[in-house]
Amino acid sequence: MTPKPGLFISFEGGEGSGKSTQIRCLEKWFRDQGQDIVVTREPGGSPGAEEIRNLILTGDPGRWDPVTEALLMFASRRDHVERTIRPALDSGKIVLCDRFADSSVAYQGYGHGLGADYIRKLWQLAIGDFKPDLTLIFDLPLELGLERASERFANVSAAEDRFERMGLEFHQRLRDGFREIASDEKDRCQIIDASGDIETVSERVILAVKSHIAGQGA
Amino acid sequence: MTPKPGLFISFEGGEGSGKSTQIRCLEKWFRDQGQDIVVTREPGGSPGAEEIRNLILTGDPGRWDPVTEALLMFASRRDHVERTIRPALDSGKIVLCDRFADSSVAYQGYGHGLGADYIRKLWQLAIGDFKPDLTLIFDLPLELGLERASERFANVSAAEDRFERMGLEFHQRLRDGFREIASDEKDRCQIIDASGDIETVSERVILAVKSHIAGQGA
Repeated sequence: MTPKPGLFISFEGGEGSGKSTQIRCLEKWFRDQGQDIVVTREPGGSPGAEEIRNLILTGDPGRWDPVTEALLMFASRRDHVERTIRPALDSGKIVLCDRFADSSVAYQGYGHGLGADYIRKLWQLAIGDFKPDLTLIFDLPLELGLERASERFANVSAAEDRFERMGLEFHQRLRDGFREIASDEKDRCQIIDASGDIETVSERVILAVKSHIAGQGA
Repeated sequence: MTPKPGLFISFEGGEGSGKSTQIRCLEKWFRDQGQDIVVTREPGGSPGAEEIRNLILTGDPGRWDPVTEALLMFASRRDHVERTIRPALDSGKIVLCDRFADSSVAYQGYGHGLGADYIRKLWQLAIGDFKPDLTLIFDLPLELGLERASERFANVSAAEDRFERMGLEFHQRLRDGFREIASDEKDRCQIIDASGDIETVSERVILAVKSHIAGQGA
């Protein structure tokens, strides 16, 4: 049997950029067309990767140095790709993933200063040339993103929000990093203006997805 | 304060090669001379690395694919180096370590077929040029090693002995791999003939250590 062509879309961006909400909107859009779809997220997304996620996200924020954290991220990603994403794509499904390897490039590479090249070498060793077909990078002015994220603070556990307590400079490096990634890989990455209400942003997302699918001749 | 020069010795080899016993003998030899010494082992050796060790060693042997396992090994190694080994060396201590990065080269590189070059790239990304001052590779004919290891089976938990259930061909690749490593890095690695009784092997170890220290002009 020839494997059917799946479609792998990752959602990237800083805190409060509305990724999770938009994944649910796009999931509904695809389901309304009768598509088989898998929604997943990183770190995690497979039983082993979820266990590594617990190691990464629990405990003191300084518990792992940035290199150890990057290695753990790519260990969990390898497991996620091999056990969840690739099998879904091979059976022709659409995979929507909340964060993928570009988050390591942005957070550990740009945010923590390991450098994008360093993370891309690790990417190559961990999962080779495997990457999303389309990456939507949700971009938002810093103040707006942090305002939205802080509204969520009361609802997320202290363990889960460690990425959100990094300070303004870190978030600026992150935003700049994501824009750099988008400009490095124009064919794969689309910047989505994440300001505006849910419906407005959702229309932008669907437009980007339609445009990608049209470009593939599918 | 100028950091005092520590000494980092790793013990490598297949199952049943007597590494652990010989570490205790060498520890005693150094202590009898009034030396400050840290004895540690991989995977593990720091609180974070021990948690990663639990992920690696528990559960089904096929739980992680070789690449994920290698990434987890180097994540735990990075933490071990940064939190335990390097601080001990910086304060002038002698560090004896049961297995280090050469075990990844041998097990995942040669044993599981990822290749030595692949593992050495990962080594470079995880801990840079950091390596032991002296590596003692315990070499033993396959039958003798497996005989010794199987005597231990009754005493080790099923979780801990997963490395020991790999079959003869795997152990042959492992032994050949360790010998290849020794021949690649003659300055750092010494093959120790691990056949014979504890005292005989211990004398060989002490001779190798003395010869290394004399060579360093220390």
